[in-house]
Amino acid sequence: MKSFRKELTFNIPTRRGFVNITQQVEQALRESGIREGLLLVNPMHITASVFINDDESGLHHDYEHWLENIAPHEPVSQYRHNDTGEDNADAHIKRQVMGREVVVAVTNGELDFGTWEQIFYGEFDGRRRKRVLIKIIGE
Amino acid sequence: MKSFRKELTFNIPTRRGFVNITQQVEQALRESGIREGLLLVNPMHITASVFINDDESGLHHDYEHWLENIAPHEPVSQYRHNDTGEDNADAHIKRQVMGREVVVAVTNGELDFGTWEQIFYGEFDGRRRKRVLIKIIGE
Amino acid sequence: MKSFRKELTFNIPTRRGFVNITQQVEQALRESGIREGLLLVNPMHITASVFINDDESGLHHDYEHWLENIAPHEPVSQYRHNDTGEDNADAHIKRQVMGREVVVAVTNGELDFGTWEQIFYGEFDGRRRKRVLIKIIGE
Repeated sequence: MKSFRKELTFNIPTRRGFVNITQQVEQALRESGIREGLLLVNPMHITASVFINDDESGLHHDYEHWLENIAPHEPVSQYRHNDTGEDNADAHIKRQVMGREVVVAVTNGELDFGTWEQIFYGEFDGRRRKRVLIKIIGE
Repeated sequence: MKSFRKELTFNIPTRRGFVNITQQVEQALRESGIREGLLLVNPMHITASVFINDDESGLHHDYEHWLENIAPHEPVSQYRHNDTGEDNADAHIKRQVMGREVVVAVTNGELDFGTWEQIFYGEFDGRRRKRVLIKIIGE
Repeated sequence: MKSFRKELTFNIPTRRGFVNITQQVEQALRESGIREGLLLVNPMHITASVFINDDESGLHHDYEHWLENIAPHEPVSQYRHNDTGEDNADAHIKRQVMGREVVVAVTNGELDFGTWEQIFYGEFDGRRRKRVLIKIIGE
């Protein structure tokens, strides 16, 4: 069994944003030399998400709008977490809704994806450097 | 290390629906001959979900009703994704809430499940052929 | 390839609650002797969640309040699942929102975590004995 590990780093200039990281994950898979196995991608932070969906800007607007509707950032005083001096309780909730991680099948040295599957980094408390972990096992 | 891959196909006749796919996943596990490892199941589409919960029709009604309440299909004009000519923005949101994939432990050649765990395909934009990927690694 | 399996048991005295299980998962990883691989943690029940987030009591209050707001326990008669005599339809929904399982990278014999990542058992229908499965594969 082989294993491979790589970190990506992001610094989203706004509080929230979505970045398509599919090519960076594919690059890591090529570097690993692994042809058959499983690939895990997760943020190493608890106010961000890695998820698989569509690379369509209207949809990203809809996610942003919908998440803000069900777990609004303001008023920050509505969340007890923010009594600690943080203002990111909503980001912890949004990340749970969108999910922490994705696990992807590796087949013949490629991400075993359907036509429209793309991997995104979802930031809910940005404006600082954050890391994403890629771990691949297989052979 | 062994790896095994299989696709299932579904064509749900309605826009939304839930199908218990546990037996098909168990069949794939038997075909693989893998006794110890991890098994990934995911739709190869971005408006569908694979999740684990209860095979109880009342609960499926509740999921349908609850998802439609928090991310309604209509009016389709409320979503910017639908400006592209699609009408399935709500399906992309519902899939995120229910989750994309499940990873299941394989122990002694079986799905290592509690009493009530069953695997479901959740369709949110049906009436066309869609694929589900099963990938198993182990030995 | 090595594989390792362990069960944890919990009996939460209230209907809902969050328990930090990171140390118990780390203990299982040490017992496994696995240095590189993937680790899966999931409840063996369908009204509970395993998730990764912050060990901060204000945030846990916020999760509880937010989940109860979007999928209230009462009135229990609002859910068709509860027509079966159960009263836990809301718990099945809350578990989907928070997610079933986490998959964690194992690197150099440790959970490959960022600074604040901690693993929680999330109970939504407690007051009875429940099991959590840890499965590790690697070498």
